[in-house]
Amino acid sequence: MNTIKNYIEENKDRFLNELFNLIRIPSISSIEAHKPDMIRCAEYWKQLILEAGADKSEIMPTQGNPVVYAEKIIDPKLKTVMIYGHYDVMPVDPIELWNTSPFEPEIRDGKIWARGADDDKGQSFMHAKAFEYMVKTNQLPCNVKFMLEGEEEIGSPSLYPFCEENKELLKADIILVSDTGMIAEDVPSITTGLRGLGYVEVKVTGPSRDLHSGLYGGAVANPINILCEMISKLTDSNNHVTVPDFYKEVVFVSDEERTLMAQAPYDEEEYKKALNIEELHGEKGYSTIERTGIRPSLDCCGIWGGYQGEGAKTVIPSTAHAKISFRLVPDQDYNVITERFQKYFESLAPKSVKVEVTPLHGGYAYVSPIDMPAYKAAEKAYQTTYGKRPIPTRSGGSIPIVAGFEKILGIKSILMGFGLGSDAIHSPNENYPLEQFFKGIETIPYFYKEFAKEN
Amino acid sequence: MNTIKNYIEENKDRFLNELFNLIRIPSISSIEAHKPDMIRCAEYWKQLILEAGADKSEIMPTQGNPVVYAEKIIDPKLKTVMIYGHYDVMPVDPIELWNTSPFEPEIRDGKIWARGADDDKGQSFMHAKAFEYMVKTNQLPCNVKFMLEGEEEIGSPSLYPFCEENKELLKADIILVSDTGMIAEDVPSITTGLRGLGYVEVKVTGPSRDLHSGLYGGAVANPINILCEMISKLTDSNNHVTVPDFYKEVVFVSDEERTLMAQAPYDEEEYKKALNIEELHGEKGYSTIERTGIRPSLDCCGIWGGYQGEGAKTVIPSTAHAKISFRLVPDQDYNVITERFQKYFESLAPKSVKVEVTPLHGGYAYVSPIDMPAYKAAEKAYQTTYGKRPIPTRSGGSIPIVAGFEKILGIKSILMGFGLGSDAIHSPNENYPLEQFFKGIETIPYFYKEFAKEN
Repeated sequence: MNTIKNYIEENKDRFLNELFNLIRIPSISSIEAHKPDMIRCAEYWKQLILEAGADKSEIMPTQGNPVVYAEKIIDPKLKTVMIYGHYDVMPVDPIELWNTSPFEPEIRDGKIWARGADDDKGQSFMHAKAFEYMVKTNQLPCNVKFMLEGEEEIGSPSLYPFCEENKELLKADIILVSDTGMIAEDVPSITTGLRGLGYVEVKVTGPSRDLHSGLYGGAVANPINILCEMISKLTDSNNHVTVPDFYKEVVFVSDEERTLMAQAPYDEEEYKKALNIEELHGEKGYSTIERTGIRPSLDCCGIWGGYQGEGAKTVIPSTAHAKISFRLVPDQDYNVITERFQKYFESLAPKSVKVEVTPLHGGYAYVSPIDMPAYKAAEKAYQTTYGKRPIPTRSGGSIPIVAGFEKILGIKSILMGFGLGSDAIHSPNENYPLEQFFKGIETIPYFYKEFAKEN
Repeated sequence: MNTIKNYIEENKDRFLNELFNLIRIPSISSIEAHKPDMIRCAEYWKQLILEAGADKSEIMPTQGNPVVYAEKIIDPKLKTVMIYGHYDVMPVDPIELWNTSPFEPEIRDGKIWARGADDDKGQSFMHAKAFEYMVKTNQLPCNVKFMLEGEEEIGSPSLYPFCEENKELLKADIILVSDTGMIAEDVPSITTGLRGLGYVEVKVTGPSRDLHSGLYGGAVANPINILCEMISKLTDSNNHVTVPDFYKEVVFVSDEERTLMAQAPYDEEEYKKALNIEELHGEKGYSTIERTGIRPSLDCCGIWGGYQGEGAKTVIPSTAHAKISFRLVPDQDYNVITERFQKYFESLAPKSVKVEVTPLHGGYAYVSPIDMPAYKAAEKAYQTTYGKRPIPTRSGGSIPIVAGFEKILGIKSILMGFGLGSDAIHSPNENYPLEQFFKGIETIPYFYKEFAKEN
């Protein structure tokens, strides 16, 4: 199987060309105007997997953006691996901070720079090429299915009903996902936990129209000041979230597991330097790894109101707005937490304003046990290509649908991610090192080989 | 002098045409791209005053937007009235809330709808027409000067040095200004106090780039949450401003004066209904009229940071921003208050973020005594046209340069404003009732007549 390296070497220009064509389609799922791009992107994926060697590949409609489904069934008695990935990407704001155009990929300093370079076009595309290699060299040891959705970045609203309606079609022994990261380029790791997510938009309305801040300043509630006050009351001085019962269902993590987690390499000075911050800021009583791995958090992802232009405009705006996200851990239910938040947030508003809370999306946390066969297979695959055993880690990020797969389809997922912390996913100047891209394509076939062997 | 009514009737279509041409020039001083419009607007004004009957009218350069200066000197021994107004206007955001295009004036329901319809194109233009009437009918009883600036809405930064450099040219007995309001269309009033103003922009920087809120949420300071916390700490539960020594120089207003102020017509239920609010919100221990008239206030005029688009983007932004204004009363010095604010605001920031405070502009408060001759003349003018004595009031708004005139030129100002509370100045759908516009033109000549008489 060492021919995979040669195969990559011989085909790498074509691989990059194909990936770049995928990236050039600005498939931003959260912006309605990009609807036609979602269809174009799905169509391109359908063609890519067919050319890679699938028996069939089709675009299946959903309530929202379509799912690309493909399969190659070599023997129904053999095991089946289902690849999951997403072809949608995050918005690109603030666009002015990008060094190059987000949808015109460029290779610089050994990295691909573009929106989706890592998340998740670059990572899911590795699977198409690993699959292509195994088919073209007649080494495929099991059945393979592909399921690529176009709504991951907005919480996969259509994929839940899609899974409900296609349980038979989607039968598999494991779901293989590359949409996470590893600790460092020389420290392979496998993500064994993902946080859940709740996301709401809030609106505070004061006077029915914008007012002159001189004529009215001091006499009426300013919705920006009130919103700031309300947001500041969501956490206390220990950075605990103050929403009543927010922590009620949080699963207790044993001291033993916390000790193991503490062994993962982590250099606080480097962490701070990479972000150019002087001090960390988080929940009292927990380490950084715990704060993002096993503890829930609350963040304002956006805020706006009043005059934001150049210079000075003296105004009391009529409304102020914010987007607020919670990262959740087992067994927090995002519906319950969102409800508790809404009730609490509304209770924080003085009578001088009106407040609206609109839930936007949510998802459950997920934990993947390290004793399941797929974990062992992934462990061996990394060991083969990296020469060292991967470390199990818990990620602070969320892929809500992974918990959904388990609930609806009864299938566990294995998260073989090749992203790095420096990839700036969801940020300006997203990038993906070529080394990670090619190493991913090289590692994946070993997973198939090991997983097909296990019994 | 009752021919003024006929003169208005005969010329009103021309008056409105000329005013509309003035309004159509989008002279927004705070936006650099409108620089050419400032010049066009000044040129149009120069022509308007010449045509109205000035001996000379010229555009005088300053460090910023030019000043339009004009004069008609009939006899140096007579008194001189100098009209002050401004040809610049506020920005129009949020543009989507306007019912009609802000720079295409329209008459609807007896009102002119446009940016600048009242503030201050509509009001300053009344003076051009009152002057025209007096010149054309040979009734001008004194010398007249005009000084129109293009930077009032950004704090008149160039007019202070302009006044310093042109003290001789600008000599006058009184400065006459129409840039304020009256209590109601049937309740004339004269503004005897104006609040001062301080205006700063603040920026809170957390991590050096936008971060994924899952991977980092809970571990690093979120600049939006921190900014909200800092803003919430600027006022206490009694809505007192917490900046140390903020109130130190506030002049004590006697119980007697507070009792007089309380006699001005004010209906709390109507006030709330007009703004569609359930409850007022202001400094404990003061009435609404006091809160906007004799007490300083602090307001966020704008806030922004992170994702503000459609849907959900899970991000911890690198920066968050706000614009904060203070309305000040005698004897608060905006430089001193801004300095105290800056020091205090910086002290509120945890080490996990960086904070920058940028002062944008400021101005002093002003008080105009009701026993000066110009006040008496204005009082009689209103009495003639409205049939009732005007009420002296203190406005919460600021015209910082008015305090500057007194400091630099040693000339008091009289504020004969004809705006109404419903004019929505600085807001979408600014408007100015035709009735106020014509009544203003009718009232102004009586001021000249009375003022020229006084000795």
